[in-house]
Amino acid sequence: MQGVPPVTEILARFARDTRREAIPETMRRESLRALLNWMGCAIGASRHETVERALAALRPFSGPPQATLLGRGDRLDILHAALLNGIASHTFDFDDTHLRTVIHPAGPVASAILALAERQPVSGSAFVEAFVIGVEVECRIGNAVYPSHYDVGWHITGTAGVFGAAAAAARLLGLDAGQTAHALGVAATTSSGLREMFGSMCKPFHPGWAARNGLMAALLAQQGFTSAAHAIEGRRGFANVLATDRDYSAITDRLGETWELAENSYKPFACGVVIHPIIDGCIELRNTYGIEPAQVASVHADVHPLVLELTGKTEPQSGLEGKFSVYHSAAVALIDGTAGQAQYSDARVRDAQVIALRDKVKVSVDGSMAEDAARVSVTLNDGRTLEHHVEHAIGSLERPMDDEDLMQKFRDLTVPIAGEHVTETLIEQVWALERMDDVGRLAAMTVPSHAPR
Amino acid sequence: MQGVPPVTEILARFARDTRREAIPETMRRESLRALLNWMGCAIGASRHETVERALAALRPFSGPPQATLLGRGDRLDILHAALLNGIASHTFDFDDTHLRTVIHPAGPVASAILALAERQPVSGSAFVEAFVIGVEVECRIGNAVYPSHYDVGWHITGTAGVFGAAAAAARLLGLDAGQTAHALGVAATTSSGLREMFGSMCKPFHPGWAARNGLMAALLAQQGFTSAAHAIEGRRGFANVLATDRDYSAITDRLGETWELAENSYKPFACGVVIHPIIDGCIELRNTYGIEPAQVASVHADVHPLVLELTGKTEPQSGLEGKFSVYHSAAVALIDGTAGQAQYSDARVRDAQVIALRDKVKVSVDGSMAEDAARVSVTLNDGRTLEHHVEHAIGSLERPMDDEDLMQKFRDLTVPIAGEHVTETLIEQVWALERMDDVGRLAAMTVPSHAPR
Repeated sequence: MQGVPPVTEILARFARDTRREAIPETMRRESLRALLNWMGCAIGASRHETVERALAALRPFSGPPQATLLGRGDRLDILHAALLNGIASHTFDFDDTHLRTVIHPAGPVASAILALAERQPVSGSAFVEAFVIGVEVECRIGNAVYPSHYDVGWHITGTAGVFGAAAAAARLLGLDAGQTAHALGVAATTSSGLREMFGSMCKPFHPGWAARNGLMAALLAQQGFTSAAHAIEGRRGFANVLATDRDYSAITDRLGETWELAENSYKPFACGVVIHPIIDGCIELRNTYGIEPAQVASVHADVHPLVLELTGKTEPQSGLEGKFSVYHSAAVALIDGTAGQAQYSDARVRDAQVIALRDKVKVSVDGSMAEDAARVSVTLNDGRTLEHHVEHAIGSLERPMDDEDLMQKFRDLTVPIAGEHVTETLIEQVWALERMDDVGRLAAMTVPSHAPR
Repeated sequence: MQGVPPVTEILARFARDTRREAIPETMRRESLRALLNWMGCAIGASRHETVERALAALRPFSGPPQATLLGRGDRLDILHAALLNGIASHTFDFDDTHLRTVIHPAGPVASAILALAERQPVSGSAFVEAFVIGVEVECRIGNAVYPSHYDVGWHITGTAGVFGAAAAAARLLGLDAGQTAHALGVAATTSSGLREMFGSMCKPFHPGWAARNGLMAALLAQQGFTSAAHAIEGRRGFANVLATDRDYSAITDRLGETWELAENSYKPFACGVVIHPIIDGCIELRNTYGIEPAQVASVHADVHPLVLELTGKTEPQSGLEGKFSVYHSAAVALIDGTAGQAQYSDARVRDAQVIALRDKVKVSVDGSMAEDAARVSVTLNDGRTLEHHVEHAIGSLERPMDDEDLMQKFRDLTVPIAGEHVTETLIEQVWALERMDDVGRLAAMTVPSHAPR
């Protein structure tokens, strides 16, 4: 242990002691963007069979109706609500991404503390502080063990996320630094989630599991339940057991001065990030030149090598397979001008017009192309060829989605579930979150009037 | 994956398809011994502050009163009951041990399926089959990854235990082999528990967590929740991610022919197993010669080197420290003729007569001594020296506790909590378990009449 900083204690003190004024206005604002994006994803997937099956399995064991399943209105105890909302928020794989670690930061933290905020009044400003701090704790722990931790096979959103949920919940419960350290310890010993699960319902289960267990960790610590003092850095602690290499300076350096939320990004399109540049280029050409699908003779794109390696499926059969098809993605981008969850339904993948255009798409690998870049050309039946070069796809840190983009994404996800009125009310409330007295009310506002209570 | 047997599927089929007749009568009988031992530990610790704190933290979130906290009568939903009973059963560290892996097999499996048996009727014979199979699954998975898995820092009772709980619960829920494989997959992705937690309340938390999560895994799979097909053996699955070495033949070889329950052992004394030989020797001398504490001039023992390394505390201050003191242990063994949980109370450690005798104990290391052996000599005030050589301490596989020993241990643990009548009824019922129509009734029988319901 010689020379190892006591990072469990350091993070506990950070979670407990960070004052509101220490958090920059830009990060408080970014937290609202992250929350809007998270909430849209959770509402949008709230009727997905992944959520339905988990709910069917666990509802008989739920405690009192303390917290709301977003977009549904079912009320479960706060631990189950945190789990189910966390599952929903990652079901479309459309949530936010901390690019350095590929953690999806909002799910574990927001799912835990919004549920908690339905049980005890939490002001908007306290909620935002807890969210920023939770994200900081999970991402710094992620930074410390990435990439070896991920390479070993851990789904880092689950394994690191539980610490963020614990830290944020501990702060809102008013735990002291010692109790907060115990909460981080319980988080460490419940940290789990295997990458082997990718492609199954257990993948979105992980951020929900992290939210639930982080919240439980804080509740246990509040009652004096004890864990190890060096749960993260100890010889048999998280960082040694779940990673082959670790760098504690990624936790301690400039803690409280720099903010990981600044590294957060949002997906404009409901598919793997490597296809985003070509989609971006197709939409740009469509909108600039008013291209109609019937006009298109052929589409060609030069792309980064990973695109064909990961998404080279030429004849996808289901919505999920469509997410791994650069061809389908280019086709819907040209036809619909977007590539949201609706463009990856089974029906859309099997649509005759989409298939006809998909078959006209050719893709070449260009080893010199950056991962967030693509060159797209569309040849029309009249012989014209229209070209666009995407240097940085929308959604990258160099070209982030602006508030208007995020609101549109939120609408695409939320309107089909909750209707326009609820959707616009939520947008308004999220932007005004820091002025709310009782953030828990936000959860009830996600429920369409026709939903069961 | 080439050459790797599909052990997830193999174990799922084993859990589902093993017929009653395939399980030897000796193993069914052994399961009753294991259950009696587990139940005594859980009842004995049911009022311990570890249980009290966990219950205080989690009761507000419990679902309907479906299952009983053993020895208490509080009723929680079956997931929380499995968690709390699992915690209680390991709180005294007095539960059973699969010697090859140091897994404590009964806690995760029995805590899960007894809770389940309170929700749906389970016959005694079905319960015993599920228990034997659950223990087989967890111990074979443990065998496959031990020792590297344990050496990395995993608390194997938690990490392997969750598979046993899942397999046993899946069988009692009547899942098919495919669903059972998904249950094992959810178990894999919730498998957790760090050795860093040893010495804190999180250590007994682990078997409870395994019981709870294995049960949840089966309930999720029952509703069609999916996980990975190769959750255990896949490239990013349990055995690759949580261990540096693995041997799948320990899972597949003679599966259904040999039984890991045959390797199970029970602790006669409520302290680390390395002190058991000297305690055994002291009790033998006391009973053979009728030694009174006032007669003793000095005590000397030759012991295995680990004894002083692990339990050399000369002046323990608390009951917990007493468990790490060979001196205290020898003293209470000579005075009380036993070393149960009562001998490791704070009061007993601070008792003047115990301290006086403790100070007369001298211990020498003998490198040629086996771990389960000791040579003890007591010199009396009249000059006589009485000697006894323990070749295999009681509780070792060579000299297992017999039924009478196990019943006496059960009484020592249970009478102070539940009284003599309840205790004797439970003993009778456990021996007759295979003839019970509804094993769930056993849980209610553990509750003393004065306990809250």
